Amino acid sequence: MSKSKLTIENIRHAAEVLREVARKTDMIFAPKLSTNAQVWLKTENLQVTGSFKVRGAYYKISKLTAEELGRGVIACSAGNHAQGVALGAQRRKARAVICMPDIAPIAKIEATKSYGAEVRLVPGTYDDASAYAEKLCREEGMTFVHPFDDPDVIAGQGTLGLEILEQLPDVEAVLVPIGGGGLISGVAYAIKHLKPDCKVYGVQAAEAPSMKRSIEAQDKLTLSTANTFADGIAVKHPGDLTFELVNRYVDGIVTVSEDEIAAAVLFLIEQRKLVCEGAGAVSVAAMVYDKVPGLHGKKVCCLLSGGNIDVNILSRVIYRGLLASGRRTSLKLSLPDKPGQLAIVAGIVSKCGGNVINVSYGPSGVDTALASCVLNLELETRDFTQIGEIHGALEAAGYHLLRE
Amino acid sequence: MSKSKLTIENIRHAAEVLREVARKTDMIFAPKLSTNAQVWLKTENLQVTGSFKVRGAYYKISKLTAEELGRGVIACSAGNHAQGVALGAQRRKARAVICMPDIAPIAKIEATKSYGAEVRLVPGTYDDASAYAEKLCREEGMTFVHPFDDPDVIAGQGTLGLEILEQLPDVEAVLVPIGGGGLISGVAYAIKHLKPDCKVYGVQAAEAPSMKRSIEAQDKLTLSTANTFADGIAVKHPGDLTFELVNRYVDGIVTVSEDEIAAAVLFLIEQRKLVCEGAGAVSVAAMVYDKVPGLHGKKVCCLLSGGNIDVNILSRVIYRGLLASGRRTSLKLSLPDKPGQLAIVAGIVSKCGGNVINVSYGPSGVDTALASCVLNLELETRDFTQIGEIHGALEAAGYHLLRE
Repeated sequence: MSKSKLTIENIRHAAEVLREVARKTDMIFAPKLSTNAQVWLKTENLQVTGSFKVRGAYYKISKLTAEELGRGVIACSAGNHAQGVALGAQRRKARAVICMPDIAPIAKIEATKSYGAEVRLVPGTYDDASAYAEKLCREEGMTFVHPFDDPDVIAGQGTLGLEILEQLPDVEAVLVPIGGGGLISGVAYAIKHLKPDCKVYGVQAAEAPSMKRSIEAQDKLTLSTANTFADGIAVKHPGDLTFELVNRYVDGIVTVSEDEIAAAVLFLIEQRKLVCEGAGAVSVAAMVYDKVPGLHGKKVCCLLSGGNIDVNILSRVIYRGLLASGRRTSLKLSLPDKPGQLAIVAGIVSKCGGNVINVSYGPSGVDTALASCVLNLELETRDFTQIGEIHGALEAAGYHLLRE
Repeated sequence: MSKSKLTIENIRHAAEVLREVARKTDMIFAPKLSTNAQVWLKTENLQVTGSFKVRGAYYKISKLTAEELGRGVIACSAGNHAQGVALGAQRRKARAVICMPDIAPIAKIEATKSYGAEVRLVPGTYDDASAYAEKLCREEGMTFVHPFDDPDVIAGQGTLGLEILEQLPDVEAVLVPIGGGGLISGVAYAIKHLKPDCKVYGVQAAEAPSMKRSIEAQDKLTLSTANTFADGIAVKHPGDLTFELVNRYVDGIVTVSEDEIAAAVLFLIEQRKLVCEGAGAVSVAAMVYDKVPGLHGKKVCCLLSGGNIDVNILSRVIYRGLLASGRRTSLKLSLPDKPGQLAIVAGIVSKCGGNVINVSYGPSGVDTALASCVLNLELETRDFTQIGEIHGALEAAGYHLLRE
């Protein structure tokens, strides 16, 4: 392990080093996000590589000796840390080997390769990839870059604390996602040293609350599962160093559900034109669903940690959001089995302004008349009012709507 | 009409006035956008109200006399101009009436109302809403705010030219969307006066090339249709003033197809974590599909004009993009009508790593054996290689794939 120590000077040094590679991402006011508080978004989803991870990884690699670099760097990651390490190694002209679980989205694999890293796809989960990386590290003597439990990595992430205070000097609370805890450790360390009255809260997925549970138990716990679509924070066990730092500097940890995270991702797309991955949006979910007490009237910064969401997942999040807001709906109708029925139903839907995007039509089941058919329609709609109008018009015309 | 004149002083004055409401949006380097040129994105999709329109509308309203304001302002818009005028009127405490076609997305209607404007939904198209707005203007003596053909509105949009030159002083070419031409008129005027060697190119949807055709004919033409999903630039007829300014200051106009625009929207989501509406992404489409000759090795700024895309449309764009990149696929199989077939097929797909997300199953048509069924599967996949593996495995197991 590194003999570095986390200090404010170390974080300031990291900020200088990072000037050559990282962007000072924008701080954007988000008026519609909360009626209670004034909220700003620190947009690390717009960072180079699509997440904050480049800060810690690049700074860590910048501090390696020529000898350590010469042995090549190795890391394990399902995505964001991978890209940060790959970019750092590319700039320092070092060999980089990144072990990734073979279930990682192809977009993240390709992005990592695009920075010149060798990607080893390991069958299984993140834990399998991690075990393989450690084995390779021992066997080939490469230099390991930990994703969070390292003072230089934490110092790199801490540069975000400096930027938040510079861009929003009168900030009163900062909401930060927690996976392994590297990001919040750095941010909280910087903020509590420079502006101790500013609160720092952590946000975890309710399905992967490893740090929250560990802090509550005052003991590092290992979760048996961490099944959240916010894959960037699906971490089963906190780091040693990050546990200590969170315990000392963080004012509280809250959790958000999968549906709340999905709604936050959709909110950011619609209202702020920003794409966030699940992990990147948990701070916004905590704000929208009012998880942190005492923020009324306060100036709050939500840290958006990253935007590397798989498009298949994004597509599902949007679909669920459309259903939840009445802009997409399904209808199931029992129709008498005689000619012209489909045309009549389609006419009624169209007259109400609904747009049919999918149709299936077939014989009925045991619960309806033998001489009838079942029609399934998927519609684009404007809102729940319009859906109600469509239901009403179909029923007024004598059609029977079946429950899904 | 206003007696203002477009001058650089006017544009500089607009920049000062706009400080109280508009953001200086970020200029973001986009390394993967082109292998030919170095490309930066001017992110007006992240502007207040989600588009550049607030610049021109707000500046115009700021210059109205107390008497003009007292009569209230009126505008016609399908979305972005509506929000700009509504915000401007709200800040100046003037009454605002916005006429919108009743087919406008509910999200844009709600956003306009949220700034305190009265929204009149007019049955029909944009042209119907526009006729209604003119009638109302005459009858009630309100002050009309034109979306583009006005020197103050153009001066407001021209502030983007100043910002581009400030943020990227060595820019060599700027690509700007064209609808009515207000945005490019202001940007080109500013840039050609301050940095005459910088090229300014316009981009239109191929389905709505009103300015391009008019410039080619050297006469203002009216298109019979303007059917593009880039609704923000679906304009049938250029403005008088904008036609003159484009003719004088713009170096060329190119067009992009609907599929090219959709691909650009998806590219910006995946690669840059930015949500753009169709109109907002045409400059990127022109860059990705290499529509503008002579940009090799150049420093290019693509102006992203707005991000107010309807989520139903966004959902379709993503879906089409997933199909086009092999991450979503449909299969149609003829199965012998005997028990267990569905389970076997599902097993083969799953073994290849495909993820079934939709199934329909029914009797076969005239082109297959009577004692067979047809199975339709929709799958999430990784890439075309994996789709090929799934096809191969199914055929190796004796199943017959039907053409769609």
